[in-house]
Amino acid sequence: MKDNVNIGLIGFGTIGSGVVETFNQNFDLINDKVKKDVKLKRVVDLDITTDRGVKVDPEVLSTDVNDILEDPEIDIVIELMGGYQPALKFILKALNNGKHVVTANKALLAKHWEEIIAAARENNVRICFEASVGGGIPLLQPLNESLAANNVKEIYGIINGTANYILTKMTEEGREFEDVLKEAQEKGYAEADPTFDIEGHDTAQKLIILTILGFGIYVKQERFHVEGITKVTPDDILFAKEELGCCIKLLAISKLVDGELEVRVHPTIVPEDHLLSSVNGVFNGAYLVGDIVGPVMMYGQGAGMMPTASAVVGDCIDIIQNMTKPVAYGPEKSKVKTVKAMEDVRSKYYLRLTTIDQPGVLHTISGILSDYSISLESVNQKQTAKGEPVPIFMVTHGALEKHMTAAVERINKLDFVRGETVFIRLL
Amino acid sequence: MKDNVNIGLIGFGTIGSGVVETFNQNFDLINDKVKKDVKLKRVVDLDITTDRGVKVDPEVLSTDVNDILEDPEIDIVIELMGGYQPALKFILKALNNGKHVVTANKALLAKHWEEIIAAARENNVRICFEASVGGGIPLLQPLNESLAANNVKEIYGIINGTANYILTKMTEEGREFEDVLKEAQEKGYAEADPTFDIEGHDTAQKLIILTILGFGIYVKQERFHVEGITKVTPDDILFAKEELGCCIKLLAISKLVDGELEVRVHPTIVPEDHLLSSVNGVFNGAYLVGDIVGPVMMYGQGAGMMPTASAVVGDCIDIIQNMTKPVAYGPEKSKVKTVKAMEDVRSKYYLRLTTIDQPGVLHTISGILSDYSISLESVNQKQTAKGEPVPIFMVTHGALEKHMTAAVERINKLDFVRGETVFIRLL
Repeated sequence: MKDNVNIGLIGFGTIGSGVVETFNQNFDLINDKVKKDVKLKRVVDLDITTDRGVKVDPEVLSTDVNDILEDPEIDIVIELMGGYQPALKFILKALNNGKHVVTANKALLAKHWEEIIAAARENNVRICFEASVGGGIPLLQPLNESLAANNVKEIYGIINGTANYILTKMTEEGREFEDVLKEAQEKGYAEADPTFDIEGHDTAQKLIILTILGFGIYVKQERFHVEGITKVTPDDILFAKEELGCCIKLLAISKLVDGELEVRVHPTIVPEDHLLSSVNGVFNGAYLVGDIVGPVMMYGQGAGMMPTASAVVGDCIDIIQNMTKPVAYGPEKSKVKTVKAMEDVRSKYYLRLTTIDQPGVLHTISGILSDYSISLESVNQKQTAKGEPVPIFMVTHGALEKHMTAAVERINKLDFVRGETVFIRLL
Repeated sequence: MKDNVNIGLIGFGTIGSGVVETFNQNFDLINDKVKKDVKLKRVVDLDITTDRGVKVDPEVLSTDVNDILEDPEIDIVIELMGGYQPALKFILKALNNGKHVVTANKALLAKHWEEIIAAARENNVRICFEASVGGGIPLLQPLNESLAANNVKEIYGIINGTANYILTKMTEEGREFEDVLKEAQEKGYAEADPTFDIEGHDTAQKLIILTILGFGIYVKQERFHVEGITKVTPDDILFAKEELGCCIKLLAISKLVDGELEVRVHPTIVPEDHLLSSVNGVFNGAYLVGDIVGPVMMYGQGAGMMPTASAVVGDCIDIIQNMTKPVAYGPEKSKVKTVKAMEDVRSKYYLRLTTIDQPGVLHTISGILSDYSISLESVNQKQTAKGEPVPIFMVTHGALEKHMTAAVERINKLDFVRGETVFIRLL
C-alpha cells in the first residue's frame, strides 16, 4: 500500500469538528501508529464560513462534495452529514469510486443496509460505523472481531443517552417525566423535538445494526416492537426500587433462543445487581452474552462531539491498517430461523392500574388475568385519600405478550378502572 | 494468502481444552468468518492420554513440540502451557520460524516483553495476547485499535478474579479475609497457594501489559508499588461503605499526569457510584480514560476455561484476517517522561489504628500527621468495652505517600498504639 493516506470529511458539524480537532490534537499519535502519512485533505460542508472553534486550513475547506468523491487521491471518505439524502447518494458514490467509508449515520445504515453493504462488497472496499452505536464506546469492533469466536446469544443495550439521562434523573430525584425532559432540553441533552429519542426510534436504529453484527440478520424497524419511556412515572420507578430492588431502563434487546430471535425496544425493569443498572446519566452500555465468553459489557459516552469523533478516527485507523481485510459484518451464516412476533414473547410484567376503591375490584381484575393464564406474583395497593382513585401495582409470573395485551385491553374497559393501565416488562 | 490456515496448540490443560472445545463447537462460524479453511492441526502436551472431556482426533495429539514448531505448514502457534520456561523458548522458536503466536501467558510477557516483541518484529509476524489480561473481555484489542485515536490518560483495572471474589464476599457478608479465602479455595476460585493473587502479583503482571498498550512504556514490576488485600478487614469495608459511600477494590492503576506516570497496585477505596464498584465476584473490569473518548469500561469474566478460550480463538481469527498488519503494541512514541516513585504519589488516605483509650491520644496522633502536612477530613472513634483497645478511623485530605508512610511509622511506635496501623488509598 502507498505510504500516504488522504481522508475527506463530508459534514463539518459538531462531530465533524470533533474529527478535525482529533486530527489536530493527535496527528503524531495517529501517524506513528499506522506508520503512514495520514492527511485530512478535504472538509466539505455547505457552510464553510462559520467558525467551529477548531483550527482548519482554509484550503482544505470546500462546498463541493465532488472535491472529495471525485478526487482519486482520497482513500477514505468520512460521512457525518446525517440524514438519508444526499448522504446515501454520497456514500454509494464514494464506495463505487473505490473509496473506503466511515460513517456515524445509524438512521441511514438501519434503513439502507443492504444497498450500502452490497456496494462496499462489490467494490471490495470497507465501510466502518463504530460511531453509529454507542458513540465512542468500543462496541462494534469488539463484537465483530474480539468476540468473533462466539455465537452471540443475547444483546441488551442502553444506547440512547437522552432517554437514559431522563430515567436516571427521574430515579434519583423522584421527578416527573415532563419536568425532567424540559430540564434535559435546557441542558442540551434532549432535542427541541425529542420524539426520536424518547419514543425509542434512535435506540431501534442502533439495535438494527447490533442485530446484524451479532446475529447476521437484518431486521427492519417495522418488524419489531419499539416503545419509548413517556409512560413511565416516578411511581413505577419507586415501586421497582422498593418492592423489586430494580431500576427502569430503556433497553434494546436482541436475543436468540432455539433459532427464534426476539428483537425489541421498551422500558425494562432491571435488577439493581445487574451491571446495566449502573449505566446512568448520558452514558451508554451494551451487555452481550456469547456462547463461549459468557457475559461482557462495554460502557462509555454514547454521544457527544469528542467521544463520537474518537470512534470515527478509530475506524479510519482500522481501515488504514487493513485496507484489504475480508469484509465480514457479523456471522456470514445466521443461526436465526425466524424472528419472533412480539405477541409470542414471554415476560414477567409489572402492571400499574388505577381504580375506584370498591368491593370486588381485585377479584374482577385477577379473574381477567386468570382467563389469559396470567398468574400474579404480588399485588400492592397504595393508600390514598378517601374517595380518590386507587393505584394498584401488580407483578405477574411469566406470560405471553398477546395474553397481557388482551387482558389489559379488557381491564381498561372496566367501569371502575380510570385511565390507561401501564405495563412494563421485567428483564 | 493461502486459503488454508493451520494452527498448533502447545498446552492441553484447562484453557487448551477450552480452545479445542471452541474449535469443535464453532468450527463453521470461524471458517465462515475468515473465509478460509482453518484447522487445529496439532495439539502438543506431555500428557496426551488423560481424558479432558473434549473431543479431539487422536492423530492431532503429540508429545513432541517440534511437531508444531518445525512444521512449515503451521501458521499460528497457541502457547498455553504457562510459566517462563520452556514457554519462552518455544515462543521465540515459533516466532523465529515465521509463525504467528497467540498466548495467554501474562507472567512471561510481563517479564520478557522486550525479547519477545523484538523477535516478533524481526520476523515480521504477530503476537497476540488478548487472553493475558481480563480473560475473555475484549480489552487489549479495543485499547490498541478502537481507541487508537486517543492518548490514554488513565487505566483502572479490577483484573484479578480471586481477589475481587474475596473482597466482594467480605463486603456482602461481613466476613473476615481468612474465612472467605478458605471458602474460595474450596470452591476453586483461589489456588492452594493463593499468594500470587491475593498479594497483587498477578494484577501487577497484567498492569505491565496494560501499561505498554496504553502508554507505550514497559515498566518492570520491581519499579512499582504492589500491595495485596490481606490487611483489609470487615471493619475497613464497613467504614468505607457507611461513612464514605464507597467499597474497597484491588485496583491496578496506571495514570499519566504531565508526563509523569503513576503505576501501582493496591486496595483502593472506590465510590459506590463509580462503575468499578459494580464489578463484583469473579468478574473483571477495566476502566480507561482517553483524551478524546473520555471514560470507557470493559467488563466480563477475567478467567476460566471458556472465556479465556474465547479471547485466544478471537486472536487467531484476528491474525488470520490480518497476517500483514503493521505490528504496533501501544503508542510508538510514549508520552511518558518519567515513572513517578511511589513516595511521590499523592492520595487521600483512610487510616485504621488501634490505641488504648487514654487522654491525649488523638492530640498526639494528629500532631504527628500535622508534622508531615497531613490534614484530617474526618475522625471516627469506635465504642468498645471499657479497658479494651479502641479502633480509630481517619480520612485525610490529599497527602504524599512518603509523608504518610513516615507518619505511620512514628504512630506505630507510640506506646499507646496497638498493632499495625493500616492505611488504604482513596480513588
